Amino acid sequence: MRALQSVTRVDAMKVKAGIVGGTGYTGVELLRLLAAHPEVELTTITSRGEKGAKVSDLFPNLRGRVDLAFVEPDEAALGPCDVVFFATPNGTAMKSAPALLEQGVKIIDLAADFRLRDPEDWERWYGMPHACPELLAEAVYGLPEINREAIRDARLVANPGCYPTAVQLGFLPLLEAGLIDPESLIADAKSGVSGAGRKAEVGILLCEAGDNFKAYNVAAHRHWPEIRQGLTAATGKSVDLVFVPHLAPMIRGIHATLYATLTDPEADLQTLFERRYASEPFVDVLPPKSHPETRSVRGANQCRLAVHRPQNGKTVVVLSVIDNLVKGAAGQAVQNMNLMFGLPEAAGLQGIALLP
Amino acid sequence: MRALQSVTRVDAMKVKAGIVGGTGYTGVELLRLLAAHPEVELTTITSRGEKGAKVSDLFPNLRGRVDLAFVEPDEAALGPCDVVFFATPNGTAMKSAPALLEQGVKIIDLAADFRLRDPEDWERWYGMPHACPELLAEAVYGLPEINREAIRDARLVANPGCYPTAVQLGFLPLLEAGLIDPESLIADAKSGVSGAGRKAEVGILLCEAGDNFKAYNVAAHRHWPEIRQGLTAATGKSVDLVFVPHLAPMIRGIHATLYATLTDPEADLQTLFERRYASEPFVDVLPPKSHPETRSVRGANQCRLAVHRPQNGKTVVVLSVIDNLVKGAAGQAVQNMNLMFGLPEAAGLQGIALLP
Amino acid sequence: MRALQSVTRVDAMKVKAGIVGGTGYTGVELLRLLAAHPEVELTTITSRGEKGAKVSDLFPNLRGRVDLAFVEPDEAALGPCDVVFFATPNGTAMKSAPALLEQGVKIIDLAADFRLRDPEDWERWYGMPHACPELLAEAVYGLPEINREAIRDARLVANPGCYPTAVQLGFLPLLEAGLIDPESLIADAKSGVSGAGRKAEVGILLCEAGDNFKAYNVAAHRHWPEIRQGLTAATGKSVDLVFVPHLAPMIRGIHATLYATLTDPEADLQTLFERRYASEPFVDVLPPKSHPETRSVRGANQCRLAVHRPQNGKTVVVLSVIDNLVKGAAGQAVQNMNLMFGLPEAAGLQGIALLP
Amino acid sequence: MRALQSVTRVDAMKVKAGIVGGTGYTGVELLRLLAAHPEVELTTITSRGEKGAKVSDLFPNLRGRVDLAFVEPDEAALGPCDVVFFATPNGTAMKSAPALLEQGVKIIDLAADFRLRDPEDWERWYGMPHACPELLAEAVYGLPEINREAIRDARLVANPGCYPTAVQLGFLPLLEAGLIDPESLIADAKSGVSGAGRKAEVGILLCEAGDNFKAYNVAAHRHWPEIRQGLTAATGKSVDLVFVPHLAPMIRGIHATLYATLTDPEADLQTLFERRYASEPFVDVLPPKSHPETRSVRGANQCRLAVHRPQNGKTVVVLSVIDNLVKGAAGQAVQNMNLMFGLPEAAGLQGIALLP
Repeated sequence: MRALQSVTRVDAMKVKAGIVGGTGYTGVELLRLLAAHPEVELTTITSRGEKGAKVSDLFPNLRGRVDLAFVEPDEAALGPCDVVFFATPNGTAMKSAPALLEQGVKIIDLAADFRLRDPEDWERWYGMPHACPELLAEAVYGLPEINREAIRDARLVANPGCYPTAVQLGFLPLLEAGLIDPESLIADAKSGVSGAGRKAEVGILLCEAGDNFKAYNVAAHRHWPEIRQGLTAATGKSVDLVFVPHLAPMIRGIHATLYATLTDPEADLQTLFERRYASEPFVDVLPPKSHPETRSVRGANQCRLAVHRPQNGKTVVVLSVIDNLVKGAAGQAVQNMNLMFGLPEAAGLQGIALLP
Repeated sequence: MRALQSVTRVDAMKVKAGIVGGTGYTGVELLRLLAAHPEVELTTITSRGEKGAKVSDLFPNLRGRVDLAFVEPDEAALGPCDVVFFATPNGTAMKSAPALLEQGVKIIDLAADFRLRDPEDWERWYGMPHACPELLAEAVYGLPEINREAIRDARLVANPGCYPTAVQLGFLPLLEAGLIDPESLIADAKSGVSGAGRKAEVGILLCEAGDNFKAYNVAAHRHWPEIRQGLTAATGKSVDLVFVPHLAPMIRGIHATLYATLTDPEADLQTLFERRYASEPFVDVLPPKSHPETRSVRGANQCRLAVHRPQNGKTVVVLSVIDNLVKGAAGQAVQNMNLMFGLPEAAGLQGIALLP
Repeated sequence: MRALQSVTRVDAMKVKAGIVGGTGYTGVELLRLLAAHPEVELTTITSRGEKGAKVSDLFPNLRGRVDLAFVEPDEAALGPCDVVFFATPNGTAMKSAPALLEQGVKIIDLAADFRLRDPEDWERWYGMPHACPELLAEAVYGLPEINREAIRDARLVANPGCYPTAVQLGFLPLLEAGLIDPESLIADAKSGVSGAGRKAEVGILLCEAGDNFKAYNVAAHRHWPEIRQGLTAATGKSVDLVFVPHLAPMIRGIHATLYATLTDPEADLQTLFERRYASEPFVDVLPPKSHPETRSVRGANQCRLAVHRPQNGKTVVVLSVIDNLVKGAAGQAVQNMNLMFGLPEAAGLQGIALLP
Repeated sequence: MRALQSVTRVDAMKVKAGIVGGTGYTGVELLRLLAAHPEVELTTITSRGEKGAKVSDLFPNLRGRVDLAFVEPDEAALGPCDVVFFATPNGTAMKSAPALLEQGVKIIDLAADFRLRDPEDWERWYGMPHACPELLAEAVYGLPEINREAIRDARLVANPGCYPTAVQLGFLPLLEAGLIDPESLIADAKSGVSGAGRKAEVGILLCEAGDNFKAYNVAAHRHWPEIRQGLTAATGKSVDLVFVPHLAPMIRGIHATLYATLTDPEADLQTLFERRYASEPFVDVLPPKSHPETRSVRGANQCRLAVHRPQNGKTVVVLSVIDNLVKGAAGQAVQNMNLMFGLPEAAGLQGIALLP
């Protein structure tokens, strides 16, 4: 096979990008997107466990497209990067961030280290003290539909969680417009199994998670405080939220079904949503009576929304779908990178969803 | 292959059962259960489209176990039966029911013809006038956990819908005990694709419904009035309900996630559920903090429930799983038949769920 | 929930069965079958890792049906059993077998410890010396369609592998009749993922094995010597075999597609197969031109076969399907137990395949 | 949502492309590829059944990317195109081809109308007389790895079938080099369900084809004569082939496992394959001992191959994977179009496979 496109050639004009921890699903998705990004030079990818191995040996879809091998994660490797993506377990990025920022490297953390603004919150939900609480105030929550301007200027972006992306984009127009009771929020969310990561765990085996459906973490899920913080910050309203995540027998996709009590039964909800997202490149409001499907965003950096009011009653129902690995992780990270480096926001993100 | 067990031998002591319309998924599931039922003789199975064909040619899992061929659906074939199951499209059973009842045949309708008590409701939701509205008052809604005694005496049983079974069993203890606001009910339900039946339709192809998740019929679903009627009848409370069904990429199983606002924050919900279902053979209340999985009831006549109160808040969350083809259709029909004929309620229903 | 049937009551007439290593998929399938077996009392189940845990906490499909807890695997627990099933990793049963046999306990090993008759073969393929090579000659290869009489008298049965069951049943009639060149055998076999066991391994995650198809172990697979030995022993012909296993994105089922060169182009292959298996309770020869489906045996102790001769050419094609966990493991083990204890061969094995 | 990229703008330099019959899976895949193709202007898409409907209403993944509506398939609509793709049922393209060719429109037929060179063969396998047998000699079989130069000059390209692509690419190096007995070929092929098209048929429902595996059309499949003709034409050897297709429970992907008898046991098969495809942009020979996975080509115009010789025996085993909708259909059609119009062969085909 002739290589289609080299990704290792040096090009002074391009953004030099590194990835820390590229052996998981957000890592391989970042690689897929960055390898095809016209303005990026992928220079470094690190992994302790896979050091020395070729990326394309682990992920054969990248054969002929990514020639890099995994290297040890250290400053020598990452320092020359313009931007470093952390596709690592929680608690990793916070250890390296201060030194890299000092070297002038911008950081996009796809894990949770910089999502919660209060270090005590972080410790409570993630079970360890925060390594650099002084950076929490600086970190920008990377949901462009809320924080686009702040992201442009950020050195450190906390890429949102997958559920929080789908849930916040669905509730935002209603909360901003004051049309729902902020204490009545229910988010019933269903995720494909890739949301659990590429880990050797029995619960996500094909024979356990396949042809099966279940809720999990109903008592408490780490995305709950993130969603509440995000919606409160964006709208100034203290929200109360019931959040029930479920595991669906599919690979990619989140479908969030959102419920809230309307305070104004006369509101034109369809128009509200269409206007809110009219200029957003990656949020698509479907026509009335639509039911978005997760496959309509498979592999694409898109959120598709539909708004319903069953039986013309007091409850609004919003349906929100994303690909958890794209708009819910790697795609949104690239969108944030584009903003941070003044690139066209959609650069490298124009792939059309794979259907069927 | 030597036949394992003949199902056609005549046995005067057994209940002679017929099936009308046995070419769909509830039909083949009825066949699987009845062929192995120790007190039933399967005598007749009808299908216009497949007349003359051997049942086991259509459903090879029945080879060596069911020797019947499909016959024309007429009174001559069905009159000698003790009980006839209708596994037909909506609107079929109501045409044949009066004549069969007159012949002394008991009827269990797995479709919707006798589920709604008000003929105007039926016409509104099912788009045709009812053929025998005079039977609606007599028909017993076949949810044994509510109507066990009435079912024992019934000539005509309306077997509940799959969603209504899962949803009602989850809400019942709370409504009966007056612990939730009856106007606050939300049922977010997810179904495997077999719930849509065995029909040549594009939307349920593997390539359309596989690796995909979506809501459907958010504006209105025919199980909505059935659930409301059932809960109101059982508890004397006029309930308001938001019901959002979803299609999950799996074959069997319903997972209903139920939300309601608690009126008594001090109630011991776990004990309430355990007591309510302590003597029920087919409802299993899981320990606190459990998450029932649909596969734990795959092929079994079971409903498994768990009750949660996230963040000790005002909202109760009930998780309810059934196999839509068993406790949600054919299994419940057999349970009803057992009651109607004075057989042990669990006869023929002791199969253990297939896991994995 | 009221328990449907207690499996712990003592019944002097029943076969007292123990299971060593019941935490995998063959273990839970054995539990499902034995819990419903009319002639078996399940007395003991062992697991080092899960000691003390209730079986039904690990496998919720068994709630209300199996009340046992896992105990330490030792002779005190297993000695009183009439039969012990080893559902353990390779190399475990051979360590305990001599002592148990001495105590008069019969053994059925679902792993590979007693499948190969030559201890050097075993060491070469399984990477460890055999712990009790003196028992290899006594062990009976538990394929009832070949060794029924020997199994009846056996103390120690080596339950066949899943692939070897499907492949041997397909080739046997042709080899026995001398109708194919024994050096021309090709077995292209496809297995559901449960064949790989319930292990925390990345390769069998839903996100790795789902929506995907691949061959594996083409260079060498441990079932290759087992198939060759079995076919040679049964037919007296030294066979040469190419065996290519594949991983299919489903939970249960093996589909073996078998190819061989015919030596007699005039043979009536359909009649040959039908006669060979006419009295077999668990081998079903389909009519000419059939294509057996794995789902037609899902959960059932059945092998279904079809024989083809494309373009009337020199190559015979046999299609053979089993459920790898039933006829390919736990079901066949129960069939062997029935033979060893003089029970009806089909006792406890009459469950009908779950379709859809 | 802001549209990311308009596909309807007129650009005189671009190839104006039309699609006839764009409502199936090869149609939507063509749309996905052509909408993102830098050198193509998608001008027309026809469908009798969906006339007037927006393409993106049928295929929501195309929202914001394809603004076209389906129009009636007639010459007025198609005449101005530079190239027309037929993504139609067999027997459609042959009716329109002569008139379009006369208007100077180039044609790529993704159906079978121009694949077989002998009109009698066509009639025998496809059950209807050929409408323009005089064009069969002119039509070029569009497998670039064989016919690249002829394709560049072609007016009419017969795009190969999906199975024939995977099978021929696997056997070609061996046959060309004379290293296998051309009468010993066996192709055991497994396809995802999208290969059966987007048709309302019971057999490809999720509940029929999901969690299931089966062979089909073992007696005769239309791709059998196509493969034989292709291999014979390319190598000058009359080949004999046993071809057994199977339906695998997944959406996309073909895995062909190929067997043949080696005539030269000393040949270096790995080097043979690597050299044969060294300059091919879309055929990737994996390192020795590899097992290509279908997901490694999901959505990508790639064939990945591995060659094995189990037990160093007389049989060579080739593993060949493609995405049936891309290299097996729409992608190969675009590759052919690129050649026919002097575009870079990989233009618009650089998408990386979606994994997981």
